[in-house]
Amino acid sequence: MVCADKITEELLKAKEEKGLTYEEIAEKLGRGKVWVAALFYRQATASEEEAKKLGEILGVGEEIVKELTKPPYRGRLIEDIPRDPVIYRFYEVLQVYGLPLKAIINEMFGDGIMSAIDFKIDVEKVEKPEGARVVITLDGKFLPYKKW
Amino acid sequence: MVCADKITEELLKAKEEKGLTYEEIAEKLGRGKVWVAALFYRQATASEEEAKKLGEILGVGEEIVKELTKPPYRGRLIEDIPRDPVIYRFYEVLQVYGLPLKAIINEMFGDGIMSAIDFKIDVEKVEKPEGARVVITLDGKFLPYKKW
Amino acid sequence: MVCADKITEELLKAKEEKGLTYEEIAEKLGRGKVWVAALFYRQATASEEEAKKLGEILGVGEEIVKELTKPPYRGRLIEDIPRDPVIYRFYEVLQVYGLPLKAIINEMFGDGIMSAIDFKIDVEKVEKPEGARVVITLDGKFLPYKKW
Amino acid sequence: MVCADKITEELLKAKEEKGLTYEEIAEKLGRGKVWVAALFYRQATASEEEAKKLGEILGVGEEIVKELTKPPYRGRLIEDIPRDPVIYRFYEVLQVYGLPLKAIINEMFGDGIMSAIDFKIDVEKVEKPEGARVVITLDGKFLPYKKW
Amino acid sequence: MVCADKITEELLKAKEEKGLTYEEIAEKLGRGKVWVAALFYRQATASEEEAKKLGEILGVGEEIVKELTKPPYRGRLIEDIPRDPVIYRFYEVLQVYGLPLKAIINEMFGDGIMSAIDFKIDVEKVEKPEGARVVITLDGKFLPYKKW
Amino acid sequence: MVCADKITEELLKAKEEKGLTYEEIAEKLGRGKVWVAALFYRQATASEEEAKKLGEILGVGEEIVKELTKPPYRGRLIEDIPRDPVIYRFYEVLQVYGLPLKAIINEMFGDGIMSAIDFKIDVEKVEKPEGARVVITLDGKFLPYKKW
Amino acid sequence: MVCADKITEELLKAKEEKGLTYEEIAEKLGRGKVWVAALFYRQATASEEEAKKLGEILGVGEEIVKELTKPPYRGRLIEDIPRDPVIYRFYEVLQVYGLPLKAIINEMFGDGIMSAIDFKIDVEKVEKPEGARVVITLDGKFLPYKKW
Amino acid sequence: MVCADKITEELLKAKEEKGLTYEEIAEKLGRGKVWVAALFYRQATASEEEAKKLGEILGVGEEIVKELTKPPYRGRLIEDIPRDPVIYRFYEVLQVYGLPLKAIINEMFGDGIMSAIDFKIDVEKVEKPEGARVVITLDGKFLPYKKW
Amino acid sequence: MVCADKITEELLKAKEEKGLTYEEIAEKLGRGKVWVAALFYRQATASEEEAKKLGEILGVGEEIVKELTKPPYRGRLIEDIPRDPVIYRFYEVLQVYGLPLKAIINEMFGDGIMSAIDFKIDVEKVEKPEGARVVITLDGKFLPYKKW
Amino acid sequence: MVCADKITEELLKAKEEKGLTYEEIAEKLGRGKVWVAALFYRQATASEEEAKKLGEILGVGEEIVKELTKPPYRGRLIEDIPRDPVIYRFYEVLQVYGLPLKAIINEMFGDGIMSAIDFKIDVEKVEKPEGARVVITLDGKFLPYKKW
Repeated sequence: MVCADKITEELLKAKEEKGLTYEEIAEKLGRGKVWVAALFYRQATASEEEAKKLGEILGVGEEIVKELTKPPYRGRLIEDIPRDPVIYRFYEVLQVYGLPLKAIINEMFGDGIMSAIDFKIDVEKVEKPEGARVVITLDGKFLPYKKW
Repeated sequence: MVCADKITEELLKAKEEKGLTYEEIAEKLGRGKVWVAALFYRQATASEEEAKKLGEILGVGEEIVKELTKPPYRGRLIEDIPRDPVIYRFYEVLQVYGLPLKAIINEMFGDGIMSAIDFKIDVEKVEKPEGARVVITLDGKFLPYKKW
Repeated sequence: MVCADKITEELLKAKEEKGLTYEEIAEKLGRGKVWVAALFYRQATASEEEAKKLGEILGVGEEIVKELTKPPYRGRLIEDIPRDPVIYRFYEVLQVYGLPLKAIINEMFGDGIMSAIDFKIDVEKVEKPEGARVVITLDGKFLPYKKW
Repeated sequence: MVCADKITEELLKAKEEKGLTYEEIAEKLGRGKVWVAALFYRQATASEEEAKKLGEILGVGEEIVKELTKPPYRGRLIEDIPRDPVIYRFYEVLQVYGLPLKAIINEMFGDGIMSAIDFKIDVEKVEKPEGARVVITLDGKFLPYKKW
Repeated sequence: MVCADKITEELLKAKEEKGLTYEEIAEKLGRGKVWVAALFYRQATASEEEAKKLGEILGVGEEIVKELTKPPYRGRLIEDIPRDPVIYRFYEVLQVYGLPLKAIINEMFGDGIMSAIDFKIDVEKVEKPEGARVVITLDGKFLPYKKW
Repeated sequence: MVCADKITEELLKAKEEKGLTYEEIAEKLGRGKVWVAALFYRQATASEEEAKKLGEILGVGEEIVKELTKPPYRGRLIEDIPRDPVIYRFYEVLQVYGLPLKAIINEMFGDGIMSAIDFKIDVEKVEKPEGARVVITLDGKFLPYKKW
Repeated sequence: MVCADKITEELLKAKEEKGLTYEEIAEKLGRGKVWVAALFYRQATASEEEAKKLGEILGVGEEIVKELTKPPYRGRLIEDIPRDPVIYRFYEVLQVYGLPLKAIINEMFGDGIMSAIDFKIDVEKVEKPEGARVVITLDGKFLPYKKW
Repeated sequence: MVCADKITEELLKAKEEKGLTYEEIAEKLGRGKVWVAALFYRQATASEEEAKKLGEILGVGEEIVKELTKPPYRGRLIEDIPRDPVIYRFYEVLQVYGLPLKAIINEMFGDGIMSAIDFKIDVEKVEKPEGARVVITLDGKFLPYKKW
Repeated sequence: MVCADKITEELLKAKEEKGLTYEEIAEKLGRGKVWVAALFYRQATASEEEAKKLGEILGVGEEIVKELTKPPYRGRLIEDIPRDPVIYRFYEVLQVYGLPLKAIINEMFGDGIMSAIDFKIDVEKVEKPEGARVVITLDGKFLPYKKW
Repeated sequence: MVCADKITEELLKAKEEKGLTYEEIAEKLGRGKVWVAALFYRQATASEEEAKKLGEILGVGEEIVKELTKPPYRGRLIEDIPRDPVIYRFYEVLQVYGLPLKAIINEMFGDGIMSAIDFKIDVEKVEKPEGARVVITLDGKFLPYKKW
């Protein structure tokens, strides 16, 4: 039993000392880089094998390794409306494009939702003459509302 | 001066009567389908030409057309934490993957944010054997923090 | 375009005038009674056929019938924490048994959730010597967290 | 006097070390598995005998055993609207099906509520070809509003 | 279908025109005066007979009479923390004496609650030399937590 | 200077070790049992004599005794809307019967409030064939609004 | 039955047309000017005589006059934390000087409060060389906590 | 660097040990008693001389003395709406008399506010046959809205 | 008596029909352009002369003109945390630079605040090779905390 | 890994011991004084060189120096609506002038926002006969809404 914040702190410290990026760790683990970062923040669960491998890569103790295999209590931002500008922009997108996205999804797929569980997310850097662009891809299964 | 809800209602009614999808309207306008839906919900601003063209496509009056060219008061979901399941899933993504995304963006791009202004968003339907997937692409300029 | 509250009001009035229960309507439609009530409150979407049939059963106009086939904006209780005692008790269950349920679900199924989309719900009345009992069954597909 | 979080932590640690599931502990105690998990999270009260027995099963100290027999301060999720996806789905059910459930209960039982005190809850796993289903049964006494 | 606020308004107006007090109406109905006031504010449900009788006493129309027999959506104060000083004092009592009351109830009755459903409430005026006193009696069935 | 939570903890521990109920302590002090519980939770202030006597009854140190004579910062429930079911029921009573109570008090006493300061509260257990009842009496001075 | 906002609007309009200040009306009524303003905003109750006299002064109809004699639902600012700068400053005073004031009152008077019911409030203008000063006097009865 | 709560605690302890009232300290310092209490709660800033003098009066260390000369982060009540009954009454005054006070101030002084910075506050005890009264005087400079 | 939203709507409509910018109106009035916009949104008060002149410029009725001379209820954004991206950025500046600004102001000016009443604000457009910049100047009197 | 509050505390303590102002440090670093204060509060990120230089100026350890080069979690005021009067005034400006500023910016620049990232802020002291004025300049790039 180690609390989530403690685990994140230990993992980040080890990552810093090893001088590794999420990308590099992701490659070693054979997983996506956002998923790996999510693991660091206790928002994802590793298999025993993955946890063990990560433990070896970072040189962290067994207790931490074990914790990473347990389903975490997810979703622990400090505020309802996030204030850090990086994270707030996603809230802004939700506020500005939430209703349009719903309209489009319902029109294209019918009544249902994009799963946030059977879901993956990735970030790419696209260099353009006028500056780099952050391209984020959300990819979730469509779940139609079931009738009964 | 026509209030935003009124405009949305009129546009949706006209779209329904004409039997058009956002995709079809987007094609006629030469714009992205999410942008068009955003225009319907008064979250985007049309040029005079675009507004006029949309007016012709849908057969709505001049007053509505004119309103679409004015910068709107954006971001008017009913609740701080959206409750409609389609829109909530984006909030869940933000809660679960917000910190990991920030960590990845800062690692890949340095200290700065993904713009939500110099920004575009698209939705695609990807058919898979186990069911359709909703693939959403957020594409925003990286803005590095300026020092002074 | 008829607003959700208006539709609910019309449906309830018609139901009252016809002297029908949800159970009776559900039987005529071949659907579950909670699903039918959800349709009345614009929390479910009917097929065109179902909407038409309901229109005939209740004798409501075509505009209403048409609206019932469109995906609604779901989840419109008046308060974040519901105050009506019937509905509050579900919030109390969530507050008291939320963490235990999560622990049990994670233990029995692994890391994932009970879907609220591929989901059905029913209410039964069980007569006991010491008084009737309300038995509610929630039945949702288990969705395991996807890794990538 | 040991604080609730401390007790939960100790119990979970002991359970982990003993390698026991809630189901197994429940069987040994002759109680339902959700009730046992609720006891772990200090949302239920054990009789002295039950507490003692649990103490023996898990090998925890007397102080902990004693605390389990005292009525706890119930209902301590971190947020008003829970963010962990497993628990949020119950909030979503409440938001989407709260009014329909109230309508059904009032129609079937008259003016009153489902008790959350004279109440039990269980979770079953139902294997289906398309995947496992979580089936949760809420079973509470109907309490009619008393007049005076 | 008449909305709750409308009904309250009509009943209060009729009561005022007839020059009746809640006490007088309560006596005619054979019910407690707080229950009658609760009926006026749509927080209680009348039997058909009671509603009819009240209709005759106040001279209100049949539609109103009918509405009074339907289970209402209860609990609609304007604010989470009530601001009217009369009502706020009950919130203050809850804030100041909530934990002590819980301690006393648990000590006297064991683990359980005072029902707010199988419940009655009355107000008396007690004249004292130093001024009148408001004496309110809450009388609810004790409901012990059920184990399973 | 000892913080309120610390004092409560010490007092509760001592009470537990002495095996005393609030009722027994109240009798020894010549005070009401809810007032004594309020003192334990630092919601009331003892005279020096009362504090000393309580100190002797429970065998707690002088520092604690001294603190009990200072006016406390009152009203420290964890949440705006209390979630523990015992305490929540009082909030529910306030939500459901708040407006009716105000109407009755204003009708019986005129424009003013029930004091929560010149106020006492008691709990009795009334055994009935169908089970025990919790009877709580709030008794506060009526304070008429002063004009000037 | 006329709603509070309507009454305020009517009274303010009449006052404006008559070209009267609160001070002038207060003098005619033999009441304090803040009390009169409170009456306009439905935060105070007039006697029948006072209401009638005010009706004559302002020339408003009988229905309004009658409403002023009924105890109002008090305390209806739009926000929890008021945003109008004039009113916010009182909130700021409460935030900055609330604890110091409590300490001073408890030290000077013992454990108890300043009544906001047996209470009066006045505003004076004091001309000083460096500009006018607003001097507000709150004058409330001290209510000691009652023991029982 | 000593945190605000720590300083307050130290000052209150020293004051208690010396057996001094705010009034007595205020006299020694040549300052108002509420200002002195505000200094104790880190809501005011002392000059070096004042801080030193207070240090001598109370016998507290140099570090504390130094902190008292730094502008504090003001306004740290625990809740948005204060729950302690002494402090809540000021909030109630604001809710009930906020709009009337604004109306009076604007009528007497024009468009502007009472400053909470160029501001002083005092409390007096006025003995009356029917009991003591708390008289609080707020005295702030009127600041007219500047145009530009 | 015309409500604030109504006035804003009328003024904006008239401004649009006349084809005038805030800058042009400001020049005609001899006032700053932000002040003029503030007047449109009922956040500032005009002298009779200014109101009359604005009435002539825009051709609006006398009732509107008169309202503009009355101190308004200021500060009526729809949300506590504004969601429109233009306005949100000011909230973000406050969140990110609030503490640093306080530190700088206290260091440069001593303990006190920048007045928001004896205050003016202006916006300029500065063209730069890499794009236009918005330069906003806040200019408020420093108000030192008064001691007493 | 040092937590943000810890870093701020250390930096402020060192600054105090060295007797340096933000202005002096800013000059040594060749940066603006608000930016430097922002760095102290972990709202800005230094280059390695800048961090090292600051470390030398203040004599703080290497761990702190290193932390200053990492992108921070920004925006951590204690409250949604800040209560410290210095910081609140910015919120008041936002509430009072937010809509007017948006109107002016949209009129002068078209549909878009002032960046809070490509942004700088400065404070100047302007001495006037009637007292010092705080002049704050916000200077952010205009970002037009991109269409797609």
